[in-house]
Amino acid sequence: MRSFGARTIAFPLPVFLVGTYDIHNKPDAMVVAWGGICSSDPPSIAISVRPSRQTYKNLIEKQEFTVSIPSVDQMSRADALGIASGVDTDKFIRTGFTPVKADKVDAPYIGECPVVLECRVSHVIEIGTHTQFIGEILDVKIDEKMIDDDGKPSLSKINPLAFDLTRSEYYVPGKVAGKAFSAGEKHLS
Amino acid sequence: MRSFGARTIAFPLPVFLVGTYDIHNKPDAMVVAWGGICSSDPPSIAISVRPSRQTYKNLIEKQEFTVSIPSVDQMSRADALGIASGVDTDKFIRTGFTPVKADKVDAPYIGECPVVLECRVSHVIEIGTHTQFIGEILDVKIDEKMIDDDGKPSLSKINPLAFDLTRSEYYVPGKVAGKAFSAGEKHLS
Repeated sequence: MRSFGARTIAFPLPVFLVGTYDIHNKPDAMVVAWGGICSSDPPSIAISVRPSRQTYKNLIEKQEFTVSIPSVDQMSRADALGIASGVDTDKFIRTGFTPVKADKVDAPYIGECPVVLECRVSHVIEIGTHTQFIGEILDVKIDEKMIDDDGKPSLSKINPLAFDLTRSEYYVPGKVAGKAFSAGEKHLS
Repeated sequence: MRSFGARTIAFPLPVFLVGTYDIHNKPDAMVVAWGGICSSDPPSIAISVRPSRQTYKNLIEKQEFTVSIPSVDQMSRADALGIASGVDTDKFIRTGFTPVKADKVDAPYIGECPVVLECRVSHVIEIGTHTQFIGEILDVKIDEKMIDDDGKPSLSKINPLAFDLTRSEYYVPGKVAGKAFSAGEKHLS
């Protein structure tokens, strides 16, 4: 094993597009790779944001946000959100993304994305450079075209982006490798 | 968009194997899909665990843990850790996984996994069914065979598992879709 030191290396990392309104209801969105589900009940998701970001200010003011999960089809536009600053740029005009008012929270989601979570802040934790916002998930919405006949979301249709930090690359899901809570039975029987 | 209600749906979800010792230094490991990086500096990772788990008791006692990231080659053994209870089963004997004492923390990692993080608990947050443990990452270790000639970890060699909760399936990375902080430039110039 080669030591890489104290680094933020992990696989997979998500590409979450976090949507918020400012106090004047101007929509903002940023890319968050520091995050993940953090509780089953209440269903909750954690996202970490630097205090310098417009999203941070909006989260403190509004206490509500969305997470839009981009498909590979939205890659270049999602990446643009990661490059641009919300303070200086109207990211929605530049990218052509459509901010849509969420149903359950006072925050915009990205209309083009296949999966959307509507969240209300429940905890705020300061951790060095980043502040972690835990949000209770009030609803998940999935594009009808991304749902299979069995009523479940289709991973291959959604084709969600993941982020390889070590190479600064986005990648998509490959093949299904096996069934969870099943593939391991042979080691236990 | 079809509403799925208040659910823990997100893509991608990780497959983190969390290693701990109990007070008698017996190694334990469990599968955690509720987690992710949560700060750049100090580099930190969050994992969420139910209080009923042996891992929870060990985390409270020892305040140190490892995260081993399994390759597809370890899928069935990783899945067995997700099925078995640490209280009743010697998971290491059953799966053939090797608990290796970490260098920087008092916790075991799984010797067969390609990527290992050594972590010390910095925050403990109770969130409903789960308690979130934030750990400062003290070191990351990567199997020499998984490192490319340029010194960076190889996503295709590591072939890390991801978890599709909605279908209870594991999957591996597919093709690289584009460069981060670059693919979006065309929308901003």
